[in-house]
Amino acid sequence: VTDSSTGEDLLVGRAIERLAGGPTWIVGPGHDCGVLRAEEGAVVTTTDALVDGVHFRLADCGPEAAARKSLLVNLSDLAAAAAEPLGFVVCVVLPFDAPDDLFDRLVAGLAETARAWNCWCGGGDTNRGPGPLTLAVTAFGRPPAGGIVTRSGARPGDRFSVTGPLGGSLLGRHLDFTPRVREARVLHALRVPHAMMDLSDGLSTDLPRLCRMSGVGARIEAGAVPIHPDAAVGAPTGRSPLERALDDGEDFELLVAHAPLEDATRVALAREGVALHEIGRATEPREGLRLARGGIAMPLVARGYDHFRGG
Amino acid sequence: VTDSSTGEDLLVGRAIERLAGGPTWIVGPGHDCGVLRAEEGAVVTTTDALVDGVHFRLADCGPEAAARKSLLVNLSDLAAAAAEPLGFVVCVVLPFDAPDDLFDRLVAGLAETARAWNCWCGGGDTNRGPGPLTLAVTAFGRPPAGGIVTRSGARPGDRFSVTGPLGGSLLGRHLDFTPRVREARVLHALRVPHAMMDLSDGLSTDLPRLCRMSGVGARIEAGAVPIHPDAAVGAPTGRSPLERALDDGEDFELLVAHAPLEDATRVALAREGVALHEIGRATEPREGLRLARGGIAMPLVARGYDHFRGG
Repeated sequence: VTDSSTGEDLLVGRAIERLAGGPTWIVGPGHDCGVLRAEEGAVVTTTDALVDGVHFRLADCGPEAAARKSLLVNLSDLAAAAAEPLGFVVCVVLPFDAPDDLFDRLVAGLAETARAWNCWCGGGDTNRGPGPLTLAVTAFGRPPAGGIVTRSGARPGDRFSVTGPLGGSLLGRHLDFTPRVREARVLHALRVPHAMMDLSDGLSTDLPRLCRMSGVGARIEAGAVPIHPDAAVGAPTGRSPLERALDDGEDFELLVAHAPLEDATRVALAREGVALHEIGRATEPREGLRLARGGIAMPLVARGYDHFRGG
Repeated sequence: VTDSSTGEDLLVGRAIERLAGGPTWIVGPGHDCGVLRAEEGAVVTTTDALVDGVHFRLADCGPEAAARKSLLVNLSDLAAAAAEPLGFVVCVVLPFDAPDDLFDRLVAGLAETARAWNCWCGGGDTNRGPGPLTLAVTAFGRPPAGGIVTRSGARPGDRFSVTGPLGGSLLGRHLDFTPRVREARVLHALRVPHAMMDLSDGLSTDLPRLCRMSGVGARIEAGAVPIHPDAAVGAPTGRSPLERALDDGEDFELLVAHAPLEDATRVALAREGVALHEIGRATEPREGLRLARGGIAMPLVARGYDHFRGG
């Protein structure tokens, strides 16, 4: 008793040992604050919370996968800015009735992901609450030379491309995907992106967000949208593979607005193994958001995930 | 429909207008990432999540006060590092059955606090979940010249002091307090703190944490602990005002380890209106953590808030 190691302190102490690492934290976890190196004079930040029953099903996927996803979704946001992951902090809210090993297994999932991405923890906070497991990660990145890519830089005439096929991520990809960090940095090094975002809520919901921030419209060619094989699998839902590619969400591919690609750029991207599937183009804002099929353009309706509606 | 403004996007758009500000965000909210200026080549980070029913009672205090507290507790951590607040990001998890105005009222509370502290939002994330309202804030600070104060620097012979009276914060202070940002910077400018932390879980729980990180013991003089008048108020709980000062938590005063104060330092602190109540001293680690009453030292037992036990 005299050393006053409470249950919390023992668990947190073990977690700190497993999650601390890397050269980027000048002061790491265990203090009231961490200190992150920011040699460029600026640090890229992003934050995303995941909730059991909404973003994962703990009983199905297990704590390790939930924790991994909580970090990966934030790395995907860093990728959208063409930033290089530097570290993260995490708030864990455990259910009051959580099993004893839940916290340790979450830490294991975070530690494995931290190691895979060389992106280590600089601090955190652990609580218990009456709700489901909630994981709120804030990730930090190094801005690329010349500054990050935002959602604002698209202009009429730009092409819209995505870095991979869309739809059906609930089959499993939403839990274990590769944030497009490398692809984003290749694209940025080739000066391709005018604007970029990651596709988390579905193309039909996310594209309008980029268009609004850029002040452009969009015309998407239905036949050009790359559809993931998973979008054609599973229980019949009455929704076509194309609809699922547009609306399912959690693809965590990048949506990129860029000038028409020059041949030299195409060659360089191919050499780096970076795919860019052109799906349409940016238009004047008055043209709104349209989906063209067989030459006929209809309004593109946002049917992706709306966290205020609950999807 | 063609502009695809979903409910989420409209609400978030309004929130961004109210929460963005200040010169520290090179890229502010509305993109996948924000970019924070970090002119010192380093940024101080801290994160804390608050849950309805655990850290506040939404039905009693209202959303504005809950949101304010979610930012203030993080500013208190920045204070413990002697850092200057620069900005924050926030994850909001709304209950599925939240009233329509909950989000706007949370934003109002955050905006008011952001303005009061000139500490503005650079991004966020909004979700709904089956649990109670959860607010996870990550705050950023500018490190003071020479680097932040941590929990590690206390040494045997140091004095322990607190910046204000303790106990009874549940009477209301836990919801509306002044993070000791100014006091910390005065102390740091006078080179007073060897180690520092903010008192969130109660002195009897927090002091051992600082001692463990510093590798020291502690002897606290019961008669020297400043007791807040609120610790003597309220329903009889069978706990003395001293016990409540030691154990209640959420005082958000600073615990400071420092060399015995020179007279010139005392004068300077008094001139700046910074109180330091000396409560004991750091000892050799083998002496453990002791509470002395009338010359008799007993083990100091951690009875503060343990988030794994639930307090």
